[in-house]
Amino acid sequence: MSELQNDRLLRALLRQPVDRTPTWIMRQAGRYLPEYRASRARAGNFMGLCGNPDMACEVTMQPLERFPLDAAILFSDILTVPDAMGLGLYFSEGEGPRFERPLQSAAAIRAIGQPDPNDELRYVMDAVSLIRRELNGRVPLIGFAGSPWTLATYMVEGGSTKTFGRSKGLLFEDPESAHHLLGVLADSVAAYLNAQVAAGAQALMIFDTWGGVLNPAMYRTFSLDYMQRIVDQLTREAEGRRVPVVLFTKGAGTRLAAMADSGADALGVDWTTDLADARTLTGDRVALQGNLDPAALYASPTAVRREVRAVLDSFGNGPGHVFNLGHGVTPDIDPDCVAAAVDEVIQYSPQFHSPS
Amino acid sequence: MSELQNDRLLRALLRQPVDRTPTWIMRQAGRYLPEYRASRARAGNFMGLCGNPDMACEVTMQPLERFPLDAAILFSDILTVPDAMGLGLYFSEGEGPRFERPLQSAAAIRAIGQPDPNDELRYVMDAVSLIRRELNGRVPLIGFAGSPWTLATYMVEGGSTKTFGRSKGLLFEDPESAHHLLGVLADSVAAYLNAQVAAGAQALMIFDTWGGVLNPAMYRTFSLDYMQRIVDQLTREAEGRRVPVVLFTKGAGTRLAAMADSGADALGVDWTTDLADARTLTGDRVALQGNLDPAALYASPTAVRREVRAVLDSFGNGPGHVFNLGHGVTPDIDPDCVAAAVDEVIQYSPQFHSPS
Repeated sequence: MSELQNDRLLRALLRQPVDRTPTWIMRQAGRYLPEYRASRARAGNFMGLCGNPDMACEVTMQPLERFPLDAAILFSDILTVPDAMGLGLYFSEGEGPRFERPLQSAAAIRAIGQPDPNDELRYVMDAVSLIRRELNGRVPLIGFAGSPWTLATYMVEGGSTKTFGRSKGLLFEDPESAHHLLGVLADSVAAYLNAQVAAGAQALMIFDTWGGVLNPAMYRTFSLDYMQRIVDQLTREAEGRRVPVVLFTKGAGTRLAAMADSGADALGVDWTTDLADARTLTGDRVALQGNLDPAALYASPTAVRREVRAVLDSFGNGPGHVFNLGHGVTPDIDPDCVAAAVDEVIQYSPQFHSPS
Repeated sequence: MSELQNDRLLRALLRQPVDRTPTWIMRQAGRYLPEYRASRARAGNFMGLCGNPDMACEVTMQPLERFPLDAAILFSDILTVPDAMGLGLYFSEGEGPRFERPLQSAAAIRAIGQPDPNDELRYVMDAVSLIRRELNGRVPLIGFAGSPWTLATYMVEGGSTKTFGRSKGLLFEDPESAHHLLGVLADSVAAYLNAQVAAGAQALMIFDTWGGVLNPAMYRTFSLDYMQRIVDQLTREAEGRRVPVVLFTKGAGTRLAAMADSGADALGVDWTTDLADARTLTGDRVALQGNLDPAALYASPTAVRREVRAVLDSFGNGPGHVFNLGHGVTPDIDPDCVAAAVDEVIQYSPQFHSPS
């Protein structure tokens, strides 16, 4: 592997000094980019993109050609893991992801097994290797997976949901089956992330999109405990460097305090919690990644720059901050606003990293 | 007006002693009840229900015939106010509420004015008077309105939104127009709520469904400050009793502390914050209303009862708790689960109110 030329992200995630705050953007390879839309049209559909290592590599690289970002993130989907478990992932227009065979009984839950990341998910590992070669040491590559609870919601509901009636219903009504499912998912995700590291991923992120919809006690029992089970199993060193792990629960709020004890190196923070408060909650035990409201990108570049400065001011001095949005970039924003955000981080953040 | 026979709700909202925790259910008159679906079919559509005082009264009374609830809540919609401002509210199948004439420019925002609650919104006041007569003192009647920010999101977006691109875009890009709109809305809502009190409402609730999607600084500036402007203008006494005011911001989290200083008597709390933590955050300055996860009602009555006990245990001893869900009841649950929840509050809560 080529030597890494820009290690700001890895250093910041480990709370080591950097010259300026590193930045990447959740869903940076996405529909807001015309070149992405062209690739997707060529691929036919979303799975045609993430299922094909060449296409996945192509779209992973696109935002790096436009913006001076400090990281690449594997282009894939969190639902590749349940798909590899045999649930049959497909994307229907206007409805988002769906499964052909959702888990509709305790027996169906007992029947699922761990996929082999180097067999059913080989295409992901091939994409990781290819992207690493293509990056050629320019910036580090982030691998990722969905949290067990977040994956379970889709597997039980059969797709997206507003009420979480079936998935929360399972937790309330049959916690034993829920724990079985979440255990299999945690071990599957751990193996999947370790395979990504073996293939070349240099940092890892676990997306718990739906942890925030659980009450605090259930969050602990059904989401955080299983993320911790993953973290406990992860390869934490590769190519002579530590592989930092980031946990992100959308809507975490005060749950950030408990998350900081999970053994993760860093936490993603959405925009509904101030970074200053997040620092207090986590006692500077972990690095923080975030947290511009993605909706700020609907404003003008001037307003975007003002909001970026507010985020950087809120974290304040010292290492341990990775600039990002508080959630994924939305499809209908102007790429110039992303350019303004990334540039403002570069211009404004060095003051927070001066040697003292 | 007939004398009130059950004043548990009013007493609990003012943190006065009661024999047991009072309970009502957000959206208790709603689609989960077969008798509601029958009324709605007869009315033709949703506006046929809320626009007709007899129908609004009929569906308001339905849950009280089934469950021993401690309050009625006016059957209406938060969007009646922008409708009365001339935006043209309609409901399209599967899409939720829409406006024919959303606010698409600063000029459109400057052009709107306050509706007269006793003219354009006369049908709401007639419904309030009718329901009070029908209740005949059985339980108190809660009046309500949407928060200025929540109303503004629908008025600017033209309906529901996932990204809040236009509405947050207005805050980021043209805060002056945003403040103008929110000011007109605050004064309109205050007049509307005062008219409800004059017509017979005995407690008031302000629903800030979308305050939690703002970052903490913007929440303060664009949502909470305008709810405070409403509270400052409200009639606080009627028929010789105090009229308690409840503020509810979905996803409030630690914002509850600032909300407790607004002058409201009580705060609604969703299920993502423990009531014990909410008590700590608010320092027992206000009563708390909530906070069972509505998804618990997808489980069996036995599981529902267990979860209700957990909510009551979390609040613990003393006055100042009104049991409720953390958000509205969903359409596809079994009414027997609501019955179990209400009954469990009656059975289990007296221990928290024993004289000591």
